[in-house]
Amino acid sequence: MYDVAIIGGGPAGLSAALNCRIRNKSVILFAQDPKTTDLHKAAHMDNYLGFPNSNGAYLLDKFCQHVNNYDVEIKQEKIIEIFQMEPGFTLAAKDDVYNCKSLILATGIPKFKAIKGEEKYLGKGVGYCATCDGPLYKNKKVAIVSKIAEGEKEANFLAELADIVYYIPLYKSKLSLAKNVKVLYQKPKEVKGKLKAEELVLEKDVLHVDGVFFLRESIQPSQLIAGLEFNNKAIKVGKNMATNIEGVFAAGDCTGKPLQVAKAVGEGQIAGLSAVSYIDGLKTI
Amino acid sequence: MYDVAIIGGGPAGLSAALNCRIRNKSVILFAQDPKTTDLHKAAHMDNYLGFPNSNGAYLLDKFCQHVNNYDVEIKQEKIIEIFQMEPGFTLAAKDDVYNCKSLILATGIPKFKAIKGEEKYLGKGVGYCATCDGPLYKNKKVAIVSKIAEGEKEANFLAELADIVYYIPLYKSKLSLAKNVKVLYQKPKEVKGKLKAEELVLEKDVLHVDGVFFLRESIQPSQLIAGLEFNNKAIKVGKNMATNIEGVFAAGDCTGKPLQVAKAVGEGQIAGLSAVSYIDGLKTI
Repeated sequence: MYDVAIIGGGPAGLSAALNCRIRNKSVILFAQDPKTTDLHKAAHMDNYLGFPNSNGAYLLDKFCQHVNNYDVEIKQEKIIEIFQMEPGFTLAAKDDVYNCKSLILATGIPKFKAIKGEEKYLGKGVGYCATCDGPLYKNKKVAIVSKIAEGEKEANFLAELADIVYYIPLYKSKLSLAKNVKVLYQKPKEVKGKLKAEELVLEKDVLHVDGVFFLRESIQPSQLIAGLEFNNKAIKVGKNMATNIEGVFAAGDCTGKPLQVAKAVGEGQIAGLSAVSYIDGLKTI
Repeated sequence: MYDVAIIGGGPAGLSAALNCRIRNKSVILFAQDPKTTDLHKAAHMDNYLGFPNSNGAYLLDKFCQHVNNYDVEIKQEKIIEIFQMEPGFTLAAKDDVYNCKSLILATGIPKFKAIKGEEKYLGKGVGYCATCDGPLYKNKKVAIVSKIAEGEKEANFLAELADIVYYIPLYKSKLSLAKNVKVLYQKPKEVKGKLKAEELVLEKDVLHVDGVFFLRESIQPSQLIAGLEFNNKAIKVGKNMATNIEGVFAAGDCTGKPLQVAKAVGEGQIAGLSAVSYIDGLKTI
């Protein structure tokens, strides 16, 4: 049971981790490869006070170095779903689960738009982890829409169970797929169905399926944890960065504009200190 | 007419200045000598992301260097009062006035408590600038309670006009005062009166006066601008750091806890960008 779990390894997540560790709380942080982040690609940055004429890669490197002075467990794992427990939270990754007393969402802004029908059928035939839900699709038809090469492994796993596996890659690289996986190079348009997902509409074809998986680098916070309140697509937070769910805090781009590093670092600090107060409060109850 | 005037040269004020200048707004910033600030004295700081094992003086120096890359007019002048004009604001210093379209309060937390009766009689015999209001006290009795050596000049100025000038220094150093200034080494306890201030109660004596001036390094935001709303002594701000007065923003310690550098830098950025939006909005009207 970690004191604090942080989803996101950008400026907000790193600042939260730093401030929690300084107050001696145990921290696990889930991050994608820093080199794949938007910040890493920012060619010129001059508005984070103290770092004139900088760039994203340099800043991110300095931030990571700073956090590495403390004992923060950083996992390059994608959290797929979060469950509220009594007490605390359970975070489900593909192969593991993690438990924490308090949670900080610093997911940034997801760079994708869900396709039509995707959110409607979430949990009703639409999912984000093929290997987790795979057994449900034994002898059935499934489609995997993937922005990441990692999706090929999931397709190969499903190909051993399912009757038909369609693979719709939204990236360009040589595929490494089992022979019975059917590849379609078409953009997905819509998920259709009645009570559950039944069709994946592509540019030209319509696939009749029992399940559709969307695999992307990031997962929207709305898909991560049930009941989280939003305000115009940004996670709704109070002054201390608390969300509407007790013990869950948010910081950085996911709480709204301006989408800037200093704002994210400041909010990460507040969220970190708020999580510390929350945990210390729990102790005394 | 400056686009933005910023009161305070700490992390919040400097971050606001940087972000306004990057958006090409003209900025004037009023600051005390950085070496007299609390941040400058902080011996060890490790929670501003990117600067491990740092200290206050080093950080402040880096912050000032960064801002100096831009053309920010920094004045080591104390703003005594702010007036809402149509449009914009007028800021009164001891010898000068400045005009701006938008205002950012980044005053930090004043390190003093007003004495009993001080706020009640503000503008009714209690003031913060002896040389500004001096002519009102011709042939009258005034007391100056001063935490700063600068108060001696004000006392000497008043001694040429007033009938009696009492000087109550709350600091230790050799005084340089006109002969007719009466020095009392006693702590002030209360300002008393009916419709206006009439007495300054000291530890042992009670001075019968027409006016009392309090001279300190900083001025409380509540004394700077009329009508500003507070929430438990912190300036009340919305998510974009706007106060209840249109065109006035606030950032840093003066908006409340946590009193930390990263929080201040983040809020300074938001306040700066909000002021920019406000000014650009004014233009198009």
